[in-house]
Amino acid sequence: MGLIVKEFGGTAVGDLDRIRNVANRIVKTYTAGNNVVVILSAMAGITDGLIDMAHKITPSPDKREMDVLLATGEQTSAALLSITLMSMGYPASSLLGHQAGVMTNCAFGDARIVDVGASRIKEYINNRRIVIVAGFQGCDEEGNITTLGRGGSDTSAVAIAAAIDADSCEIYTDVDGIYTADPNICEKARKMNKVSFDEMLEMASLGAKVLQIRSVELAKKYNVPIHVRSSFNEEEGTMVMDVDSDMESPVVSGVTHNKNEARITIKTVPDQPGIASKIFSAIAEAGILVDMIIQSSPTDNLNDLSFTVPKKDFKEAMKIGKRVGSEIGAKDVLGEDSVAKVSVTGVGMKSHHGVAAKMFTALANENINISMISTSEIRISCVIEEKYAELAVRALHSAFGLDKEE
Amino acid sequence: MGLIVKEFGGTAVGDLDRIRNVANRIVKTYTAGNNVVVILSAMAGITDGLIDMAHKITPSPDKREMDVLLATGEQTSAALLSITLMSMGYPASSLLGHQAGVMTNCAFGDARIVDVGASRIKEYINNRRIVIVAGFQGCDEEGNITTLGRGGSDTSAVAIAAAIDADSCEIYTDVDGIYTADPNICEKARKMNKVSFDEMLEMASLGAKVLQIRSVELAKKYNVPIHVRSSFNEEEGTMVMDVDSDMESPVVSGVTHNKNEARITIKTVPDQPGIASKIFSAIAEAGILVDMIIQSSPTDNLNDLSFTVPKKDFKEAMKIGKRVGSEIGAKDVLGEDSVAKVSVTGVGMKSHHGVAAKMFTALANENINISMISTSEIRISCVIEEKYAELAVRALHSAFGLDKEE
Repeated sequence: MGLIVKEFGGTAVGDLDRIRNVANRIVKTYTAGNNVVVILSAMAGITDGLIDMAHKITPSPDKREMDVLLATGEQTSAALLSITLMSMGYPASSLLGHQAGVMTNCAFGDARIVDVGASRIKEYINNRRIVIVAGFQGCDEEGNITTLGRGGSDTSAVAIAAAIDADSCEIYTDVDGIYTADPNICEKARKMNKVSFDEMLEMASLGAKVLQIRSVELAKKYNVPIHVRSSFNEEEGTMVMDVDSDMESPVVSGVTHNKNEARITIKTVPDQPGIASKIFSAIAEAGILVDMIIQSSPTDNLNDLSFTVPKKDFKEAMKIGKRVGSEIGAKDVLGEDSVAKVSVTGVGMKSHHGVAAKMFTALANENINISMISTSEIRISCVIEEKYAELAVRALHSAFGLDKEE
Repeated sequence: MGLIVKEFGGTAVGDLDRIRNVANRIVKTYTAGNNVVVILSAMAGITDGLIDMAHKITPSPDKREMDVLLATGEQTSAALLSITLMSMGYPASSLLGHQAGVMTNCAFGDARIVDVGASRIKEYINNRRIVIVAGFQGCDEEGNITTLGRGGSDTSAVAIAAAIDADSCEIYTDVDGIYTADPNICEKARKMNKVSFDEMLEMASLGAKVLQIRSVELAKKYNVPIHVRSSFNEEEGTMVMDVDSDMESPVVSGVTHNKNEARITIKTVPDQPGIASKIFSAIAEAGILVDMIIQSSPTDNLNDLSFTVPKKDFKEAMKIGKRVGSEIGAKDVLGEDSVAKVSVTGVGMKSHHGVAAKMFTALANENINISMISTSEIRISCVIEEKYAELAVRALHSAFGLDKEE
């Protein structure tokens, strides 16, 4: 007997047959004596269809109205699932975001949850009803409909699980769980049984394909363990949870890569206060997110400054770099858009030395040159030539003992 | 300068091009200095599509959840129209039923409006915003989404017009207005310039094709004149309004017919208290709506009792009639399902004699036999053989001087 939150993605509710499968899964948990709160995404393809329709009207539709439009997707799937459960003889009620008390700020299209007043959910649960909440949506304090951004249903699920103090939060996706590396490029990648919130956050490039990364931040904040699993089979997936760094934690739990970055280097800038500020203020004003920043040690009071930006912003960032570079008297501004970032992540790293050395050696053994390095407490990232990305992932995966047994 | 409510039916917003046409119409009124509140239906076909989808799950989907499902239709069209207006540079905001303060009882699928707290609408108007309200929907006092039944957007429009004390309430449909008879069977039918609320209510069978009849009841109650007009041209339509019976009122303003009735006659029932009650209680328990009821004068303490029911309920009503008939000792129970009701309606009737006689004469001249007669203050209806329905309408239309001039 427990209180279980289950979230199903768009593929899981892609048509009426699949909705019936989801209903059967819910009934199985419910008839075992549990209370069940379900958070639903829109049926696969619906959200994209609505966006396309709005873009036929204008390339930049009003954001408030887009949220009104997009919220219909989850409203539809929630009603259809409730109808299905009721037709099978089980008591079910749908709740839209505002009815479930999902209060957000007013950042339409990418709203943040500020509170979940789940009184209606609790009332239904107390009456042994199955509650179906439309995910991805909430409302601001003026009662406007808001949406939480792509993958927002994950965040809805974690926020609601926290608000009702659920015993478990299961997120059903179209993959089996979180892998030690992208299985598409590393066939020896293994499904992890568990991964810590911190590792999951560092492995954003892996995790983002499975979980909205904000849902992990929220899960960490409220300590809500997430069980990521497949909606197409009964296998256990991956627990994303608060794992302490202990003797058993692997030093490295996963290897990730990201090919969506480009590198810019501003050569020999004066080693003066305010130089970095000038460059990165200009970049930020253009709305470009900088990832890594490396400054070399000063030689003759001159530095090299390198940073990475998303590949799509590369041209504009170069333009800004050249403009600011000439203002501050830089010798040259160099760009390279065929780079990749490979990272190893693991909470075990906190208490182990030599992880970086092992990483550099593994890459060197494959003759892969490293052009930038950055580290966090539980992650080491290297920027390398893009063409070596897959090779690097496989080499690191083997070097850190992650390969699955034959 | 005024405050104009405009309601557009599903055909008017059937696709993005038509939504743009609607937007242009709104802008024309807005830029002339008026404030505009728009009530929208779902895009044509959407509501039926949603109903079909639910019926694929179960023949009797839960009513609360159906309303959640169906409400997405108007939510979508309201958002798309707002996006269109904003993209054209005009300030517009959509409001769902609950946001617009449309409070209803909890009769899901056929809810009645109990109050419209239009504070949000008024606030937007004061800021010169165009307000787009999703029609057909409201919410009950617990915040559940409700819908108002087929054609409910008409009722939304009138209720909102009353609540904000609008200067005019325009209902845009796919016909030009209200006609003196169905133009499909009476080619001499004329579009009426105005018709009274009472006449419109009596002409339900004509009006129901154009206006949800509940909207007319509401319009009468709050004295909201309705301008019924076409969304496809700029012609003036028909004003449905509070017209006093005066010298100029035509004695008969319209001729209607209804082929969806069947007649049942219970022969020679005892002239005792409680007999009619027995019969009609049994009919009512089966959920069958009885229209006309005629009881002959008693002969030897025996009556004949005739009544009409919707054709679709004929078989069941006959079964009930036979059962109750045998209980009360009726001699026979006769049924006839190929009957039609023709009616003449007009507020002028109140102050004119001889209307009934003129009607009976006109029918007799065509050798049409009358089997039942019922009257209200402003209407006379006759039940005749179904095959004469069209002929009767044309004959009455001519007899009462309604034919348009050649």
